[in-house]
Amino acid sequence: MAKELTTREDNYSQWYNDLVTKADLAENSAVRGCMVIKPYGYGIWERMQQALDKMFKDTGHENAYFPLFIPKSFFSKEASHVEGFAKECAVVTHYRLKNDPNGKGIIVDEDAKLEEELIVRPTSETIIWDTYRTWIQSYRDLPLLINQWANVVRWEMRTRLFLRTAEFLWQEGHTAHETKAEAIAEAEQMLRVYATFAEEWMAVPVLRGVKSPNERFAGAVETYCIEALMQDGKALQAGTSHFLGQNFAKAFDVKFLSKENKQEYVWATSWGVSTRLMGALVMAHSDDNGLVLPPKLAPIQVVIVPIYRNDEQFDQIANKAAEIKQSLENVGVRVKFDNRKTHKPGFKFAEWELKGVPLRLAIGPRDLESNTVEVARRDTLEKETLYLQSIEQKVVNLLEQIQKNLYQKALDFRNESTYKVDTWESFKERIEKGGFVMAHWDGTSETEQKIKEETKATIRLIPIEGQKESGKCIYSGNPSEQRVYFARAY
Amino acid sequence: MAKELTTREDNYSQWYNDLVTKADLAENSAVRGCMVIKPYGYGIWERMQQALDKMFKDTGHENAYFPLFIPKSFFSKEASHVEGFAKECAVVTHYRLKNDPNGKGIIVDEDAKLEEELIVRPTSETIIWDTYRTWIQSYRDLPLLINQWANVVRWEMRTRLFLRTAEFLWQEGHTAHETKAEAIAEAEQMLRVYATFAEEWMAVPVLRGVKSPNERFAGAVETYCIEALMQDGKALQAGTSHFLGQNFAKAFDVKFLSKENKQEYVWATSWGVSTRLMGALVMAHSDDNGLVLPPKLAPIQVVIVPIYRNDEQFDQIANKAAEIKQSLENVGVRVKFDNRKTHKPGFKFAEWELKGVPLRLAIGPRDLESNTVEVARRDTLEKETLYLQSIEQKVVNLLEQIQKNLYQKALDFRNESTYKVDTWESFKERIEKGGFVMAHWDGTSETEQKIKEETKATIRLIPIEGQKESGKCIYSGNPSEQRVYFARAY
Repeated sequence: MAKELTTREDNYSQWYNDLVTKADLAENSAVRGCMVIKPYGYGIWERMQQALDKMFKDTGHENAYFPLFIPKSFFSKEASHVEGFAKECAVVTHYRLKNDPNGKGIIVDEDAKLEEELIVRPTSETIIWDTYRTWIQSYRDLPLLINQWANVVRWEMRTRLFLRTAEFLWQEGHTAHETKAEAIAEAEQMLRVYATFAEEWMAVPVLRGVKSPNERFAGAVETYCIEALMQDGKALQAGTSHFLGQNFAKAFDVKFLSKENKQEYVWATSWGVSTRLMGALVMAHSDDNGLVLPPKLAPIQVVIVPIYRNDEQFDQIANKAAEIKQSLENVGVRVKFDNRKTHKPGFKFAEWELKGVPLRLAIGPRDLESNTVEVARRDTLEKETLYLQSIEQKVVNLLEQIQKNLYQKALDFRNESTYKVDTWESFKERIEKGGFVMAHWDGTSETEQKIKEETKATIRLIPIEGQKESGKCIYSGNPSEQRVYFARAY
Repeated sequence: MAKELTTREDNYSQWYNDLVTKADLAENSAVRGCMVIKPYGYGIWERMQQALDKMFKDTGHENAYFPLFIPKSFFSKEASHVEGFAKECAVVTHYRLKNDPNGKGIIVDEDAKLEEELIVRPTSETIIWDTYRTWIQSYRDLPLLINQWANVVRWEMRTRLFLRTAEFLWQEGHTAHETKAEAIAEAEQMLRVYATFAEEWMAVPVLRGVKSPNERFAGAVETYCIEALMQDGKALQAGTSHFLGQNFAKAFDVKFLSKENKQEYVWATSWGVSTRLMGALVMAHSDDNGLVLPPKLAPIQVVIVPIYRNDEQFDQIANKAAEIKQSLENVGVRVKFDNRKTHKPGFKFAEWELKGVPLRLAIGPRDLESNTVEVARRDTLEKETLYLQSIEQKVVNLLEQIQKNLYQKALDFRNESTYKVDTWESFKERIEKGGFVMAHWDGTSETEQKIKEETKATIRLIPIEGQKESGKCIYSGNPSEQRVYFARAY
């Protein structure tokens, strides 16, 4: 097959788009900014969902579902939230269409105007806290640990598949607690869950920390985040967990009777990851031949390709392939036998490489004689011939190795791309080349803003338990106690 | 606990609402017609999703995701579809809000008006077939077997939790085929899948058939359906599967190169079930004490309630309960130990009865001595004392019995509530009392319409392979070849 992939060096951004569309992950739709997630891409997302959902349930959370629409007035109730979220959004103003009396199709029925406009949820804090008011009366109703899997809409002007789309899929956790300490512990716990997921499932190493006030979620007291480094040296925020204080409880009047018999406002958290993770997954591991998927999330972990000259050979190989497939499936491996007679092996090799299948098994007539199979690893592109004896154990081991190798490779890359810098000149120079730059900052929004304007770099995070180290702000020269991580970001 | 449930006899409709809200399944939200699905209700829906999703995948389907929004003009492309779907719907006209210059909160930014209005999907045939145009080139791309789990919006004026809400959750399958026969086979296959799910998981017996032209899906050539009978004698459509012919392929110009090297229009099906099934589940089995859930879908299958007088007794019972819980969980049973010290056993009994937990195990000090447990079945309300030896096998057997019993009870009820009627007078009399009425119909829309106007009964279905039987239409007296099922319906 003609892949016609742009290389990373030629044009990283185009390479990403090529991969997403040509590997059948997603495509743009007829609706501006909204994507279609294709079955192969959705298969990866489903595996992400399953893994995360289990982690949420293991930490005591339950799923629920809240309305898609939010009354406009709700956004005005939490002062900083309205600034952040109620601007670029989809506004429902009418509830009926009618036939055009002039016969030109259908038009909006002006008689069916809503009294109050409805906003398609960009995030659900407001409608959920409006609901929690009736759910929470006493400390016995707490903690309330709820998650929602949903679609949300933010009317982005410049969109990119998975990374920034008007509609995207996500989960949003919304919890309510008796005490500040408990809410902070929850926000921190969910950050750990996200970090574990990114590292163990996606094989993407992440830095953990908190955002500077400028970069906080609208309405949060503290925003915890995990940040990953992409191959082009840009950072990508892979998940956030917010300690919301009592802001939403106060905005929606959610109080509880405490053990001390006093009426108190409830403490809140919210946390979310989205289909954006798909973008991170693609960019973290893939190469100029196509996707490279970590085995734990790959919809197909092993593809078997037959090499044959005639129908008789095909049938013999097909029998053997069916045996292998069964023995691999028995140990939980996801296998596809590519039995298409309409395509040549070379085409198939290229296609499964493009789609990032971790292991390819090729079987030819000579393999049948010698009871062997040629195994090719997608991550290293290495091939070796293995005896079929105990093939299932060999495959399981290889998949584990690939999962580990992808993580290690990404971690090495991040370590090599993380720099300490102490002067403004070297900062500017370094930022230009990509990677994380650890530098001193004076802690002010003004300085952060200036640095962003001059270099397009933002503070990705402030390490939570970072090494204290006295220094001088690279921009203002004012004193600083700790380095923070800067990068250009997606 | 004070349940304050209305009885079915007093007011069936109020009984239903009480159950849904008091058993924590769902509640109305601040947004008219949109519900909040609470964790306990969502837990049941998740189990429905898992079972259905597996059945879809076992029949070769893959999941994907298409946009929430559909351009208004798309609805005009398929003539009958526009009549059925593009009327009562949520219309997005703007994409931005702004601060009111007069300081009164936020208002719609009139500068941000969309060139073409977007409709929040009421169903996705149009946007999906617009997408399929680029996915389908040749017979090699067929069949295309895709399902989507999504939220949809239909602006219903009179809403009821689960049964009819403005926003609801559902799955919609959309498949594309080379031939008419293959598409019909697919539509019929998915009807069988739905029927199997309803009967084996929900324990709700269903009739299978096709809709009369009046009741067909807008844009379908044939609508297959399953119909269930509720305890008040009203029918409820529990799932539909549509053979769409080439209607959407023609509307969206989706052609393929056939094996004979000719350009042909693609054949289509679509099929869906929704959170409406939750309503059917509640109404099919529950009683005046609350929900009755079939074990296969119950979030909690067994609840253990301790009966104790002091902390020492509690601790001993808690130890035994933990043992039992573990042994039950080892064989896959979902168990909750209700260890709340703030509530009395009687309160707990009533609460778990209200929530429909299939089995309740009560353990008191005497049970500890005799190594027994008191087991209460939710479906029959019968109690018996069992030895703890092999308790896990006893519980598994009881759960199976309950599942079967619920189905059999519902089937008996339906059989007792199905009548053959041959005159217009007896038809009117019978319909008034509820149940399915099998009667002859002359096959015309006019007659169907008249019957509906005079009795509020509709043709629920025409049996697919029904017994042929000559007769005379109960209304017009014209000849008929087959009885059809009438009922008043949800």
